[in-house]
Amino acid sequence: MTNLRIGIAGLGTVGGGVIKLLAENSLTHSNRSGRSLHISAASALEMPNDIAPLLEGVEWFDNAIEMAKSTSIDVVVELIGGEEGVALKLVESAIRSGKSVVTANKALIANHGNELSALAESNGVALLFEAAVAGGIPILKSIREGLASNKFDRVYGILNGTCNYILTEMEESGRDFESVLTEAQSLGYAEADPSTDVDGLDAAHKLSILTSMAFGCPVDFKAVFVEGISNINSLDIEFARELGYRIKLLGITKLTKNGIEQRVHPCMVSYRTPIAKVNGVLNAVVVEGDYVGQTVFEGAGAGEKPTASAVVGDLIDLARNHVASPFSIPVSMLEKIPSQSMDQRYGSYYVRLIVKDQSGVLADAAKVFAEENVSIESVLQRGRDPDSTVPLILTTHDTNEASMMKVYKRLAGLDAVVEEPALIRIEHFQP
Amino acid sequence: MTNLRIGIAGLGTVGGGVIKLLAENSLTHSNRSGRSLHISAASALEMPNDIAPLLEGVEWFDNAIEMAKSTSIDVVVELIGGEEGVALKLVESAIRSGKSVVTANKALIANHGNELSALAESNGVALLFEAAVAGGIPILKSIREGLASNKFDRVYGILNGTCNYILTEMEESGRDFESVLTEAQSLGYAEADPSTDVDGLDAAHKLSILTSMAFGCPVDFKAVFVEGISNINSLDIEFARELGYRIKLLGITKLTKNGIEQRVHPCMVSYRTPIAKVNGVLNAVVVEGDYVGQTVFEGAGAGEKPTASAVVGDLIDLARNHVASPFSIPVSMLEKIPSQSMDQRYGSYYVRLIVKDQSGVLADAAKVFAEENVSIESVLQRGRDPDSTVPLILTTHDTNEASMMKVYKRLAGLDAVVEEPALIRIEHFQP
Repeated sequence: MTNLRIGIAGLGTVGGGVIKLLAENSLTHSNRSGRSLHISAASALEMPNDIAPLLEGVEWFDNAIEMAKSTSIDVVVELIGGEEGVALKLVESAIRSGKSVVTANKALIANHGNELSALAESNGVALLFEAAVAGGIPILKSIREGLASNKFDRVYGILNGTCNYILTEMEESGRDFESVLTEAQSLGYAEADPSTDVDGLDAAHKLSILTSMAFGCPVDFKAVFVEGISNINSLDIEFARELGYRIKLLGITKLTKNGIEQRVHPCMVSYRTPIAKVNGVLNAVVVEGDYVGQTVFEGAGAGEKPTASAVVGDLIDLARNHVASPFSIPVSMLEKIPSQSMDQRYGSYYVRLIVKDQSGVLADAAKVFAEENVSIESVLQRGRDPDSTVPLILTTHDTNEASMMKVYKRLAGLDAVVEEPALIRIEHFQP
Repeated sequence: MTNLRIGIAGLGTVGGGVIKLLAENSLTHSNRSGRSLHISAASALEMPNDIAPLLEGVEWFDNAIEMAKSTSIDVVVELIGGEEGVALKLVESAIRSGKSVVTANKALIANHGNELSALAESNGVALLFEAAVAGGIPILKSIREGLASNKFDRVYGILNGTCNYILTEMEESGRDFESVLTEAQSLGYAEADPSTDVDGLDAAHKLSILTSMAFGCPVDFKAVFVEGISNINSLDIEFARELGYRIKLLGITKLTKNGIEQRVHPCMVSYRTPIAKVNGVLNAVVVEGDYVGQTVFEGAGAGEKPTASAVVGDLIDLARNHVASPFSIPVSMLEKIPSQSMDQRYGSYYVRLIVKDQSGVLADAAKVFAEENVSIESVLQRGRDPDSTVPLILTTHDTNEASMMKVYKRLAGLDAVVEEPALIRIEHFQP
């Protein structure tokens, strides 16, 4: 069989990993796919020293767009990153020149997945992006193929290893967010500018891709409700434990009677659920299908080698000619499904107030809940200090977000409440 | 596109599930695969009442072998079961008549996978058996495709839900094996004759299939060392907990310097590992690849709906024409790798002695370990009762099985040891 001729653009961490993996396991790859996976061309701002010996004899392009048009490659591997700019132009140009594309770029697919998959389809080429979601875990393939006989009800997971590392460390050490973030940065688990991770944007990119794959609708990244972890404090982690919960930043997408609900925010989940037990930088995704029930996929969500594993997995699929539509069904069949607004989220809530330790506070708070028809499930009050403030914790039975937001605003306005209350959504998952 | 015309043989629990799933999600399946999955023929000893309305107009064959030869089908779904007899003849006959085959039959593939995959290859048809291992979890596909860029070091998991249910219940209730088994039978989690499950045979079938998929060698079911769970007692479960372990029946396959080690037996694993946290009837498989690291797959390992999910997933692959070799690489390239004998297993051990409570017993036992060069890691002695017997627990540092077996036999022969000692292997996995 002929070689699969690869043009790789971007030689950073992941690009380097892909090149090493293709070299190290080359025989395994050709045995499994029936073709040799051959790097024919490369393009980057500069050639890293450790990669140079592996790229001897490979055609070099200073301009990645030129590479995309070259007739000496069959597929472009886009590892430049960024949702616009060169990455976007490169992918468009490659597809228009009849090349298939493999990318790890979640921002690109979250923002341009619809146009790019339509373009790929009309040009008869493949667009694969397994590495864009949950790194080395073959979750997109599992939804698109292994579990394809199911209708999906809900998909959720820990989609950002940085946040999970920070929350795990906060829980284990009792330290607060800022201190753990600084440590994570020094360990290389968080970027110098950590906002994409800690603000939930990265998880939201991934979630929007999972949504399309599972529900067969166009990618709608802008419809994702996003809230990050920077307001989580050690007090909340402590109370969560007391209530039998752990705090995780989750991405959740589900079909409700009002449409699709997509949200990324810190959640309290029972310590008995599989997702609660996933610690450190790991990712995990839970898929709920009508026939398979609950399946859980756990593994490394980022890093040179796991990401390279997913990129080269896509290349092996291409070499085997195992190619489905980018989002499982043809673009023309993707069905626009309304978005459920966050106001309609139905579930329970945790609220932490910091209050002056005086009589009547609980009564005032309870009155607010009652007047908004939100039912209190439990109350925790810790410490007694008439000269100071104490935390007052309330959890609710299921209610809708709109009502809870009214409660929240009124609580924040109570005289005895001395700082912005904390609000964390509780999710009841299957153990 | 043309229909994928299916002939289904066997209308028991799984067969019924497949027919219901094909009916319920038919539009989803044709959208995703581009073809209609159509049941054209069926064969079984009798037609179940609840299935009959769904099979109206479907050609009926009293003889499944005749169905396999029919020109009105493209693929045979074999759900009869059994490693020989009709199931084997049916699959051979279907392949020889140019039909692809999808089966859930682990015993068949474990015993005849090599001949059958060679036959499929020479006839240019597909042989798919995702449902044979870990039910609804798409683990074979993940090894064959999603993780195909990796060399695998080790694959292990909880491959039998009945055993995991029994061990979980024993741990949670403190009851003994027989009592929990009886309950499992009444709940339908264990068969009237439970031996295939509790003796480890079912897990061994699945493990031998995982081995071939991961390591690219012919299936060698007879090389699997098998030990069941019927000797596990509640005392061992209690001591395991005290030592920070849980007891799980695992299938483990790994590449060692001496060859492939395949074994199914009860293991003590740290309570902090992902596999230790998998409870009840669930299955879970851990795959260790050189690039992806550790990935964990968890879900329903049996039952009508999850098994049907996997069978129809294979049919969707067929409809999409996504077909690799049955064991990932062509049969001619499967490489015979020597089996490491169980004597060469290297690891640590738990031994429980029931001893007369008299002085010198520990010294005698310790002497045996010392003389066989097996290093003791910890000793637990519980209770004092000079008139009776007490348990004495010893765990070892890593050693080889041959030495440990010498120790075991000598311990069993000590005067103070009053019953057959218990021996459980300890596995140190990544948390």
